Amino acid sequence: MQTTLAILGTGLIGTSLGLALHTSQAQAIIQAALGPMHILGYDQNPEASRIAHARGAIDERVTRMETAVRQAHIVVVATPVRAIQAIFSHIAPLLPAGCVVTDVASTKEQVCIWAEALLPNTVAFLGGHPMAGSERAGADAAFPELFKNAIYCLTPTVSTPQEAVDQVGILVKAIGARPYYLDPQEHDGFVAGISHLPFVLSTMLVDVVGRGAGWKDMGVLAASGFRDLSRLASGDPVMHRDICMTNRPALIRWMNEFIAHLEEMRTHLEQGDAEQILQIFERAKMIRDAWLANRLNLRP
Amino acid sequence: MQTTLAILGTGLIGTSLGLALHTSQAQAIIQAALGPMHILGYDQNPEASRIAHARGAIDERVTRMETAVRQAHIVVVATPVRAIQAIFSHIAPLLPAGCVVTDVASTKEQVCIWAEALLPNTVAFLGGHPMAGSERAGADAAFPELFKNAIYCLTPTVSTPQEAVDQVGILVKAIGARPYYLDPQEHDGFVAGISHLPFVLSTMLVDVVGRGAGWKDMGVLAASGFRDLSRLASGDPVMHRDICMTNRPALIRWMNEFIAHLEEMRTHLEQGDAEQILQIFERAKMIRDAWLANRLNLRP
Repeated sequence: MQTTLAILGTGLIGTSLGLALHTSQAQAIIQAALGPMHILGYDQNPEASRIAHARGAIDERVTRMETAVRQAHIVVVATPVRAIQAIFSHIAPLLPAGCVVTDVASTKEQVCIWAEALLPNTVAFLGGHPMAGSERAGADAAFPELFKNAIYCLTPTVSTPQEAVDQVGILVKAIGARPYYLDPQEHDGFVAGISHLPFVLSTMLVDVVGRGAGWKDMGVLAASGFRDLSRLASGDPVMHRDICMTNRPALIRWMNEFIAHLEEMRTHLEQGDAEQILQIFERAKMIRDAWLANRLNLRP
Repeated sequence: MQTTLAILGTGLIGTSLGLALHTSQAQAIIQAALGPMHILGYDQNPEASRIAHARGAIDERVTRMETAVRQAHIVVVATPVRAIQAIFSHIAPLLPAGCVVTDVASTKEQVCIWAEALLPNTVAFLGGHPMAGSERAGADAAFPELFKNAIYCLTPTVSTPQEAVDQVGILVKAIGARPYYLDPQEHDGFVAGISHLPFVLSTMLVDVVGRGAGWKDMGVLAASGFRDLSRLASGDPVMHRDICMTNRPALIRWMNEFIAHLEEMRTHLEQGDAEQILQIFERAKMIRDAWLANRLNLRP
């Protein structure tokens, strides 16, 4: 038995996945559980799949999505989240019965709804989200260690067969990541707080101070604190928009909590309540230092 | 003629200043403008001044503040900002006529008000704030290159004699920094936006998500984006409280602007206005990337 895996989208994540699956460690795990694996790669940008092939991330480069999908036992959709709906519609009639489809997008509830609505009953869907990334994008920036020790969220629903959970779980372990199972809605609520709220705050900070009257002087004075807090504002605007648009309720809830909290801090400042302010700073430092000390899976 | 300089507080900044003033490059500039310089150092923690002396940052270690101040032509107060008021009261009757006093605190208006109220007319005061720092604190963490190419804010007022501005300006250039003159109030407004608002946001982020019901899971999922955005929350709570307490009006103004901006973003999200959201993300990315490209004075 041979397993054919199709990667749709050979950017940073898709190409890194292919590279990671080709390491000898991954091959041993896959061989034992799924037999020999043949990896097909497709990207709408031919240059991206050419690089992925040249770098050994994919065994075969295909120039039509159909070709990849028709032969696949497992399909990994590794495109920006808002492209997934159209891809599901497009591949739905082509997927072989028994095929397992998964994705790597940052939001999961919307993707699960699309899967439920668009994919046939004869295939299984399991949402995935590796908690790993890089400032850089594209097949060139890919590297096989990207997922090493990273948490890899998997969001099965009532309609996901156990077999699909097992198969994707094998891939996740093969690339050195750690499967973390949660509900799609729960996932979106969590990442809204630790990932989407942070990049909204980072962007808002730059937009507020960077368009103010004093920015010419302020830009000269700004140093490393501003650099770090504003880093996420340099991320891909389209990716960030897509994430926001597919995770609106959870993100809005976190924004409301954040605003309420900031207003409380403002009240302490207005009242000159030094003791309260110190307590908040001490509490946050304790939480953050404890979190950092326990981060085994954080790349430097 | 010999110039005697007293450093009060030999922590990261005070000790780095002493080290920077002892480099051959600095010595050449000082010798030509002020003659040979003798540097006295005092710290309320004897271990700190011992380290500063052992590392060659100060020529002479004194165990009483009085001893340092009585002989000084120039006094640099390098303590946390809220300690400065008491120090001014304490040294006021001891300062020789014609002495120049400066400081290195993160907020300037309050320090200038204390100087005006507490220091005698026979001495000159000039507020200073080097835009340089480190995650680490203390004399051990000091290094002579800390100020290299850094912006060094100087905030003269109508009562600051030109001679004092010139003398402190020589020191600033000697340590490799770049003097940047501005009004104390203007300074506080600027740094509230690019330094104090960022650490308040960083702290609030940790406090909001870190005390929520889902933190146990969220902490597992949180990766490099959260790490960077939360970094300033690990800073010294006392220093941050002091900065907030001495820069309340400016910080509150920036917090109000930030909250209004975040509320606007929330409205775009509620209305599903993908175009507006993309525009804001694109605009912020442009501002941030342009700023980063022009940062000549940012250490890596």
